[in-house]
Amino acid sequence: MSLEKVLNAGSVAIIGASTNETKRGFQAIRTLLSEKYAGMIYPVNPREKQIQDLDCYAGVSDIPGPVDLALITTPARTIPAILEDCGAKGVRGAVIIAGGFGELGEEGKKLQDEVAQTARKHGIRLIGPNTSGMMNLKTNMNLVGMQDVPRGDIALLTQSGNMALTLITEAQTCSQKGFSYYVGVGNEADIHFHEYLAHFRNDPDTRVILMYVEGMRDGRSFLDEARRTTRVKPVVLLKSGRSATGRRSAGSHTGALAGMAEVAKGAFTRAGITVLENSDTLFPVAETLSSLPPIANNAVAILADGGGHATIASDLLTDMGVELPVLGKDTREKLRKILPFAASVPNPVDVAGGGDADPSIFAECARIILDDPAVGGLLIVGLFGGYGIRFAESLAVIEESAAREMGKMVAETGKPIVMHSLFNSAGPPALDLLREAGITVYGSLDIACRSIGALARYGAYLSSSPIEDDLILHQGAGAIPEGRRIIQAVQKEGRNALLEHEAGELLVAHGLPVFAGPLCETADAAVTAAERIGGPVAMKIVSPDILHKSDAGGVRLNLTTAESVRRAFGEILASAKKYDRRADIRGVIVSPMAEPGMEIIIGTKIDDQFGPIIMFGLGGILVEVLKDVSFRVLPLTPEGAEAMMGEIKARAILDGVRGNPPVDKKAIQRVLVKVSEIVEAYPEICEMDLNPMIVYKKGLRIVDVRIILGK
Amino acid sequence: MSLEKVLNAGSVAIIGASTNETKRGFQAIRTLLSEKYAGMIYPVNPREKQIQDLDCYAGVSDIPGPVDLALITTPARTIPAILEDCGAKGVRGAVIIAGGFGELGEEGKKLQDEVAQTARKHGIRLIGPNTSGMMNLKTNMNLVGMQDVPRGDIALLTQSGNMALTLITEAQTCSQKGFSYYVGVGNEADIHFHEYLAHFRNDPDTRVILMYVEGMRDGRSFLDEARRTTRVKPVVLLKSGRSATGRRSAGSHTGALAGMAEVAKGAFTRAGITVLENSDTLFPVAETLSSLPPIANNAVAILADGGGHATIASDLLTDMGVELPVLGKDTREKLRKILPFAASVPNPVDVAGGGDADPSIFAECARIILDDPAVGGLLIVGLFGGYGIRFAESLAVIEESAAREMGKMVAETGKPIVMHSLFNSAGPPALDLLREAGITVYGSLDIACRSIGALARYGAYLSSSPIEDDLILHQGAGAIPEGRRIIQAVQKEGRNALLEHEAGELLVAHGLPVFAGPLCETADAAVTAAERIGGPVAMKIVSPDILHKSDAGGVRLNLTTAESVRRAFGEILASAKKYDRRADIRGVIVSPMAEPGMEIIIGTKIDDQFGPIIMFGLGGILVEVLKDVSFRVLPLTPEGAEAMMGEIKARAILDGVRGNPPVDKKAIQRVLVKVSEIVEAYPEICEMDLNPMIVYKKGLRIVDVRIILGK
Repeated sequence: MSLEKVLNAGSVAIIGASTNETKRGFQAIRTLLSEKYAGMIYPVNPREKQIQDLDCYAGVSDIPGPVDLALITTPARTIPAILEDCGAKGVRGAVIIAGGFGELGEEGKKLQDEVAQTARKHGIRLIGPNTSGMMNLKTNMNLVGMQDVPRGDIALLTQSGNMALTLITEAQTCSQKGFSYYVGVGNEADIHFHEYLAHFRNDPDTRVILMYVEGMRDGRSFLDEARRTTRVKPVVLLKSGRSATGRRSAGSHTGALAGMAEVAKGAFTRAGITVLENSDTLFPVAETLSSLPPIANNAVAILADGGGHATIASDLLTDMGVELPVLGKDTREKLRKILPFAASVPNPVDVAGGGDADPSIFAECARIILDDPAVGGLLIVGLFGGYGIRFAESLAVIEESAAREMGKMVAETGKPIVMHSLFNSAGPPALDLLREAGITVYGSLDIACRSIGALARYGAYLSSSPIEDDLILHQGAGAIPEGRRIIQAVQKEGRNALLEHEAGELLVAHGLPVFAGPLCETADAAVTAAERIGGPVAMKIVSPDILHKSDAGGVRLNLTTAESVRRAFGEILASAKKYDRRADIRGVIVSPMAEPGMEIIIGTKIDDQFGPIIMFGLGGILVEVLKDVSFRVLPLTPEGAEAMMGEIKARAILDGVRGNPPVDKKAIQRVLVKVSEIVEAYPEICEMDLNPMIVYKKGLRIVDVRIILGK
Repeated sequence: MSLEKVLNAGSVAIIGASTNETKRGFQAIRTLLSEKYAGMIYPVNPREKQIQDLDCYAGVSDIPGPVDLALITTPARTIPAILEDCGAKGVRGAVIIAGGFGELGEEGKKLQDEVAQTARKHGIRLIGPNTSGMMNLKTNMNLVGMQDVPRGDIALLTQSGNMALTLITEAQTCSQKGFSYYVGVGNEADIHFHEYLAHFRNDPDTRVILMYVEGMRDGRSFLDEARRTTRVKPVVLLKSGRSATGRRSAGSHTGALAGMAEVAKGAFTRAGITVLENSDTLFPVAETLSSLPPIANNAVAILADGGGHATIASDLLTDMGVELPVLGKDTREKLRKILPFAASVPNPVDVAGGGDADPSIFAECARIILDDPAVGGLLIVGLFGGYGIRFAESLAVIEESAAREMGKMVAETGKPIVMHSLFNSAGPPALDLLREAGITVYGSLDIACRSIGALARYGAYLSSSPIEDDLILHQGAGAIPEGRRIIQAVQKEGRNALLEHEAGELLVAHGLPVFAGPLCETADAAVTAAERIGGPVAMKIVSPDILHKSDAGGVRLNLTTAESVRRAFGEILASAKKYDRRADIRGVIVSPMAEPGMEIIIGTKIDDQFGPIIMFGLGGILVEVLKDVSFRVLPLTPEGAEAMMGEIKARAILDGVRGNPPVDKKAIQRVLVKVSEIVEAYPEICEMDLNPMIVYKKGLRIVDVRIILGK
């Protein structure tokens, strides 16, 4: 259901309206009035007749006109009844300020579910609970009670009122930019992150979406919406809660589960989101992305006066994956002509004091550099704006005219300029002129680099071909009757782990190359199975009570004769019974020994935020000791599977190193996609491990499968 | 030679003194006068009689009194003659501003060497060339011409005038702290980084040393001085030039070679230096380290109002290796008593709006938290200082009194508090009161975290036992006649690569377990050698013209019979001749095949900054594909060798994984130390590779050695 009536409401009821200045129910009304919200404002409070010259109503039902949105400022336990009233009145949305829900544990979670259910019953969409509120700055619908919030084209979506306050304060004090919306997402009891994203994508007055996230309830839908959104406008995001203490802090704050940090970062980045880690950079990067065009070719030039800043900026942009191309021969010659002998020109360009007497040289250099087709954008670092302060007052006018020139260049070339100036805090007019032309200016070198870097990385994303998994995200491969039967049989026995032959049969039923030989209940059956196989065999105990087969003496390898198979059968059973006298022993599996090859591991599990995810790595020490793995949120496309193989650090091994031939990557890719399909097809599966698989120059062999069902 | 007369000069000659206001030779005199430098000031310029009311001299020799220091502002080519004059006059030090030396390539490097030599001849110590100058802010000896530089206890040492300007501007605008010294190190033609460090260590008015480095000429001496210094006072350092473009930029700027970034970072950190990567954090971290006591137990508590800041801070401190202990039961109970129901108390402590009506709660909580013995320091994040702004003016007084309380707590408990406040830029008096008490306050959450994190990490370093390699850094193991003979023989032939048997003999002479069998020149000799060995053997061609033996068909493995050895000898020679008809073939080495075991690689090379360094890694893909290696600057102690083994990511493998036994780490340690000794003993060695070594449960075997000599 569209959020239009919620985020763009024509009338608001304030439930819990108050005459006490310190209360939210007073402040919201005051702000709506002072900001001149054009819609109807209805205070609701049975004990008051009038609040701030507005008629006050005893209940929502007493309000004469229609009500789009209710701002509810009363305590948690009162909410369900209020929502019933709202439902009867036909209210379309509600903002619930109160905490005391999911963030306080089980009890609160129950109340939150009740609130969500009541809202759903009446078709009311909820913002929060446990939110600082919401503002639509285009219609002046400010329900937060925060004043002087700067207006602009950045939509702000956060899970922390204080991060909102931080970002709004930054906009007020350091920027000419501001916000189109602010939504405190709170506990996401009803409206989830992705729904806001879709709304802002379609909002013509929003150019950038800026997000602070601790944990999201429906990460898969979010990725889906994010992929669509980043093709149209930038999304900037900081996700906290990557450390154990950070997760604990987030949990006590919004009740959100933070999920696995490495999975989230990768998934967000692949969806085209600008993921940041330093909260200082959040607003500036959003500001730059909303002010300047993205850099099409990921290539930036640096223009400096003196070496230190240029060296630091070079390091930082390189870390971000931005290219710093050597400037063309023509460009370098033109620069040499106007710069002092000591100047350096390849990129970074160092004017080496060439601006001390005449800072117009920065505009001249900028023009020459931006004309170079190898350059997509320009970062100027150092003292610009301060030559008039540091050297001679008369230079200020020259700087101002240079600033105007630079503004024109950006408009003409479509290539952005970002400025670092250590005189930013002195506020010279030249820097204001740059800002007016859309050129962003920062006193922090780090922030200036992150900002132009974001333009370059976002531009590179836009130039890449779209990943089409959004199209298949809801497609899902189907379950088959044979698979359903296997899983139901396991559930009927009250087990949640499939036995090895059951897991094998499920994979075989879906066409995967695993040997799911028959379960042998007698030594004779084992010998027959071994003879049918022909080569050396492995034998493994099958029992729902024995998870660690080797520990129980339940595994024997490399058996080559009928007699050794027969003896092994007896020994395995004896040793298993000794290990656990009461174990329910189903028999022994006899399977062919795998030829030596390269070990591979594939696993799936359920992430708190994204649901099923898949992991890929090379077997042995590479996974066990070095944790060299890659992740994807399911479902996995063939392209995604191929990319996963390319994301592990040891990827070169797959292509053959030290004289080994390359392995069959196509075969691995098929298994990855198939595993994704199986996990999607049977939502009961919460964990699946193919460990190890042995992969060869041609083909592969799944040696062991483990499948765990959820409750 | 002490730098006392240079950095603390009693008289200064300005050579190149000028009446032109835009010239350094004018500005320096003006600043010395306006800052009231107490020493003598002697302008030198043959064309002037008086400058700024001071008598001007035609040459240094005309100055009547003694001259400690000369500030030379004339161009590069004039410097050698001026230094001759200074030498005759008995000048003790000179600051050379001019560029045009090592940073411009070979030609400039030659002039720089001439300048350095002239200075050495006369016992003149040089700052620069290519420096922005120097200031002693205690004696008001300001040779930079920069005005209003705040005085304080931070000594600033940089290789970029603009980074100095950046840091000084920050101190002016955001801090009550300032500088004891500033030195622009420039090209380090004479005085090197480490000599300044030693001077500042002994300066009672300097509490922290703050450095920006692009590359240093004598990194080993620097590490040595740094180890001594960080035991006494903190050293904060940012080293740029880690990217290729960054290195190019640094090179064109100071002519310094940037060295290997990972080697530098590790070496600096182990020397107790606070290494930073974001230039925004440089001044604040130095400010905090100079204002507050280090945290003894590496454990920090976070006090917040609302969750977002606390979650981000938790992540960041965890990344830095700082512990965030759960507060004691008593502490939590005391906090619960004074905080609202929704507050979270384990750590982070979230007052959850508990300060909105009464911000004195922050002082109360701070007291309770600092009294917890598990807590070494406190980070307060959020709105403190702004309750009077945001909620009610009357709260400002309460905040001010809380600020005074916190100041007292720090003094009483010896545990630091660092404050993040998003109202910092509004400048509320409560925050000024904190600063007066030494509590540092930042508007940036990232900077506040980095600052308290630095106190924790520096405290942890001080609590660790000192590494004693400073004692042995100049010790050096001795060369032996046998080794000298081998190396001289190689040099006599004009070669720079030792042949395999030569390298083997050198190692054997130093007691290392490598099989350096005799060089066999005939098939008969090879058969005899093989028979003496007894087991299966390997045979390898020996020729100074064949570096890639396998490519030339020059390697045969696993030969077990006399006949196969004889045949292999012939085949190897034939195939080598076919590979390179003119190759100088010395014969074939016959050595025992190594038993299978774990492959290890040890290598040494010469780093631009630190001289000889050693690398350790596990053989095969771990080094080749994953680059999982650790580095140390030589010489290596047994403790350092042990630590190196613990620094690779795959370290668990050495202790035995997947059922394998642990390997003989003591044996590896011995080889590492021995290799270090050999490289120290023969300065001719510029590269040495033991690749592979095979290590066993007990003992090891060096299979292949490569040694390259420098020119």
